[in-house]
Amino acid sequence: MTDSDETPIFDRLDAAIAVEAPVALATITEGPGVGAKLLFQPGEPVVGTLGDPDLDRVVTRDIEGELASGRTGVRHYGVHGEANETAVAIFIESFAPPPQMLIFGAVDFTAALARVGKVLGYRVTVCDAREVFATRARFPMADELVVDWPNRLLDQVGGGLGARDVVCVLTHDPKFDVPAITSALETGVGYIGVMGSRRTHDDRTKRLVEAGVTPEGLARLRSPIGLDLGARTPEETAISIVAEIIALRTGRTAPALKDTEGPIHR
Amino acid sequence: MTDSDETPIFDRLDAAIAVEAPVALATITEGPGVGAKLLFQPGEPVVGTLGDPDLDRVVTRDIEGELASGRTGVRHYGVHGEANETAVAIFIESFAPPPQMLIFGAVDFTAALARVGKVLGYRVTVCDAREVFATRARFPMADELVVDWPNRLLDQVGGGLGARDVVCVLTHDPKFDVPAITSALETGVGYIGVMGSRRTHDDRTKRLVEAGVTPEGLARLRSPIGLDLGARTPEETAISIVAEIIALRTGRTAPALKDTEGPIHR
Repeated sequence: MTDSDETPIFDRLDAAIAVEAPVALATITEGPGVGAKLLFQPGEPVVGTLGDPDLDRVVTRDIEGELASGRTGVRHYGVHGEANETAVAIFIESFAPPPQMLIFGAVDFTAALARVGKVLGYRVTVCDAREVFATRARFPMADELVVDWPNRLLDQVGGGLGARDVVCVLTHDPKFDVPAITSALETGVGYIGVMGSRRTHDDRTKRLVEAGVTPEGLARLRSPIGLDLGARTPEETAISIVAEIIALRTGRTAPALKDTEGPIHR
Repeated sequence: MTDSDETPIFDRLDAAIAVEAPVALATITEGPGVGAKLLFQPGEPVVGTLGDPDLDRVVTRDIEGELASGRTGVRHYGVHGEANETAVAIFIESFAPPPQMLIFGAVDFTAALARVGKVLGYRVTVCDAREVFATRARFPMADELVVDWPNRLLDQVGGGLGARDVVCVLTHDPKFDVPAITSALETGVGYIGVMGSRRTHDDRTKRLVEAGVTPEGLARLRSPIGLDLGARTPEETAISIVAEIIALRTGRTAPALKDTEGPIHR
């Protein structure tokens, strides 16, 4: 591929980065077509080609997920995009801030959720007004630790939250979680999960309605939080939460692949 | 609590540890009843009490999960076992080897699955016959790296695999995965997940039947592997796999808690 061919790709890349629009670039680093490039922007036709239409299709699918997670790394494929073959190595660079995970409540489940959030590429913030619980020693894996009321943090950062970002309310305390939820509902955050037993959920729903939350607002809440995996440990609960986040973002209702029909990737 | 009261608990603990039977001990370390103990063994009535019947019930439920994961740590409760309250701190000690996760295939998905497996407390082994792929540099998080054929590894360690252990076949290559699956089916492993597209699955199923695998054997396989989360990145795929493992072990079919009825913990 010559520079002149690549010019439009780098122009688009520069332009997107200049306005901080999410953009990802795929480059063949090993195998046939080394140097071939494909540029992806959400909602835009891809620019360039990796030299094979099937490979382009598969990589375009994967690059969307990598970009959504703000991740950069090497993926391997067959020459026509076959899964788990290694004929082609492709370096996928995501130019986008990582998605945000805001966890409200420094409880037993918080550290496990923060660890799993980090594996998935989130920038993780743990927020709790109780100074004695929200300590760096308990949450060394958190990118940010905020000792303040959740609604006060959301008043500051809520405007920057979008579809890729998530809010997890683990406090179980109406004093904290009602204002946290009402503030989260005023943002464009893609996921709002709220922890609690069925009884806690029913009681909290009453309080939210009293606080003026509409049926549309209530419908946005994933409460009780998580997929019904029968999770018992904090780590299993964390998996049930991020599994729900992934399924919600991709529009799945999350039965087992073993029990469903149709292609695994759409 | 006096020594004479505790004697039966420590007797039971010593006896279980002596024969390497899984056993867990819960001790109140903060709050009312400091030093109170409860001992749990799968299939046995609990020994001792934490001083409150509701607290005993909740902790007995949680301790079972902690023991199954081979985990030791502090959990917090209200005085009657209320979730996410902190009146009581309980130190749960699990005396059991960690569950095993055997991952066959050193592919793009393997490192992500190994990382998530470690969060869940598994001892993770990555096995691939291809020396160039099964390298420590690619899988620093694995507890063990085996460069050999999966069936040869299973011939060695398969006898020690039980209901808590899992086998994940990510190879996509019939040359490796058919013997890996037939060998795994000869063990008591609790979960056998096999990666692949629908087409790969159908082709592999034919080969497995030709290799003498019975319908009962095929029914044991989770193939295609994972919950249908619409996972796109290796990390999201890893979450879909462990979510399926958790749901299978707890007997759930994994819809969202938001859309199901009844108590969250059974």
